[in-house]
Amino acid sequence: MLRPSERAPGLLVGDGVDLPEDAVLGGNVVIHDGSVLGARLRLGDNCVIGKPTTLSARSTAPGGDPGAASLGDGVAVGAGAVVLAGARIADACVLADQAHVRERVEIGPDTVVGRGASIENDVRIGTRVKLQTAAYITAWSVVEDDVFVAPGVLLTNDPTAGRGGAGRELRGATLRRACRVGGGAVLLPGIEVGEEAFVGAGAVVTKDVPPRALVMGVPARVVREIGEEELLG
Amino acid sequence: MLRPSERAPGLLVGDGVDLPEDAVLGGNVVIHDGSVLGARLRLGDNCVIGKPTTLSARSTAPGGDPGAASLGDGVAVGAGAVVLAGARIADACVLADQAHVRERVEIGPDTVVGRGASIENDVRIGTRVKLQTAAYITAWSVVEDDVFVAPGVLLTNDPTAGRGGAGRELRGATLRRACRVGGGAVLLPGIEVGEEAFVGAGAVVTKDVPPRALVMGVPARVVREIGEEELLG
Amino acid sequence: MLRPSERAPGLLVGDGVDLPEDAVLGGNVVIHDGSVLGARLRLGDNCVIGKPTTLSARSTAPGGDPGAASLGDGVAVGAGAVVLAGARIADACVLADQAHVRERVEIGPDTVVGRGASIENDVRIGTRVKLQTAAYITAWSVVEDDVFVAPGVLLTNDPTAGRGGAGRELRGATLRRACRVGGGAVLLPGIEVGEEAFVGAGAVVTKDVPPRALVMGVPARVVREIGEEELLG
Repeated sequence: MLRPSERAPGLLVGDGVDLPEDAVLGGNVVIHDGSVLGARLRLGDNCVIGKPTTLSARSTAPGGDPGAASLGDGVAVGAGAVVLAGARIADACVLADQAHVRERVEIGPDTVVGRGASIENDVRIGTRVKLQTAAYITAWSVVEDDVFVAPGVLLTNDPTAGRGGAGRELRGATLRRACRVGGGAVLLPGIEVGEEAFVGAGAVVTKDVPPRALVMGVPARVVREIGEEELLG
Repeated sequence: MLRPSERAPGLLVGDGVDLPEDAVLGGNVVIHDGSVLGARLRLGDNCVIGKPTTLSARSTAPGGDPGAASLGDGVAVGAGAVVLAGARIADACVLADQAHVRERVEIGPDTVVGRGASIENDVRIGTRVKLQTAAYITAWSVVEDDVFVAPGVLLTNDPTAGRGGAGRELRGATLRRACRVGGGAVLLPGIEVGEEAFVGAGAVVTKDVPPRALVMGVPARVVREIGEEELLG
Repeated sequence: MLRPSERAPGLLVGDGVDLPEDAVLGGNVVIHDGSVLGARLRLGDNCVIGKPTTLSARSTAPGGDPGAASLGDGVAVGAGAVVLAGARIADACVLADQAHVRERVEIGPDTVVGRGASIENDVRIGTRVKLQTAAYITAWSVVEDDVFVAPGVLLTNDPTAGRGGAGRELRGATLRRACRVGGGAVLLPGIEVGEEAFVGAGAVVTKDVPPRALVMGVPARVVREIGEEELLG
């Protein structure tokens, strides 16, 4: 149950939360029951940590208790950001203002989730990933280390567009190590983007992208191989 | 006028609000004057119900008092969601976290408005509709029963792009019963998507879509008819 | 340091803030240290003014103290909107609900920033500009007077998609006087859209748009010249 705390103005803290002394808190922060908090956190104004899930009757997300939210050492959460129960955010991540992270999302260390970006349920994200403003990571996706997802990128996972019933198979995207997806690109369900590949801005990707390929257009086609000098290695 | 209430931590309630005993409230909820609230509500942290309209001097939205916001029985409103005065949300709807619903929007029962989705003024939405994350429903649109709008879909209504003056005619979209619009699709002003039609992900729709047609591409073209087995019926 | 204020329910005000008597305040407003506030402000529920910057270690935004946020006379800030320290908003602007404005953004008078729109750091915006719902203005862009940016427009600035290192050159968009950008259009890095030009909805703009040209498609091509009767003049 949420109760006012004297630690910061407008702060509400749930049961079983151990709030470290060194946390830097904005105004009106809400921390729900059982949230696990690392050292040196910065929690912005009006952010919400560990919000219990509220699924619609027709949601495709698994029910059940997703466990507590956990934030590693040095995590920064922006103003108005919402982190659901069962999300696990590793050390030194930044969740920017108004970002949204759902239940059972796992995020590796040093990853940045941009302003207003959205990560749906049951997504696994690696280390040093950068998801920029308003990027949308659909449920059941895998995003490997060092991936860059530009602003407004949209991943999809439902080939039936809602027609397959509650038990339908959803196929998230797989973004392999060090690939890059340009601004506003749209990926159809189940797409894999290969290691070090680059999807151009505004592309609509309808089939898998080979490793190290540059693809562009609607539908996206391979334009060339990424040069040695551009590889992250 | 908003005043603190003892019913929940950080709760602010306006004049003339009858808050049912069985409402489940997060932290820092704001309920403005006159809001009409059904039974078994769940109102998430930092959500705002019945916010008075604040139009810019150049807004195309009608002025005047839109009346109170009303939420039917069993409605769930997510964290950080904003529902304006004059929105009417029927029973058992879910407005997800950070969603936004404007004045004079009417939403039928059992409809889901996804995380960060936005419904502009004077929109009418049916029953069992699903608007997914960050979908954008432009003003003066009509969305019939059982429509599915995927993440990041963008409807537009102004062929002049702001050039027609304050009295200009805006033409929202019409999404007929059981149609589906895929992720990131863009609809030009005044488009009608027919019953059971399917707009592919990433399409740009420049003319009306016949009933039961599958359209794809930029500009969108009819690819085939939707098979019997895919119809909602 | 934020402290509760008796001026409005849930209001938190930082040090060195002179809150004018005529400000109209929603619930749970947060105003950070040193914010400079004009007359006749309207600040919506849960909005945040002057939030200090929190950059990730790999951010391309300049560090250092951006100075205080300032809001001119008659500015309206919507519910859940976030204005960072060092943003300067001129008289009579409207920042709609859930909008986001970063450090060192300068916005001229009478401009509207739509619901959920995002303006990144170091952007300069003119007078009577209209940025609609969920529009995304990338860092280092210039938007001149009387520009219209439709919902969901996406500007980009990084040709390397994150690969150029922290010191890399970012090239924002330049939107010249009275140009219009249609819904969901995507602009590649460094694009200039000429005076009175019009980018069609859903276009992907890969090269500069001449003044007064209408461009459409993917990639965008010139379709015709804008007629005299459509010019703002």
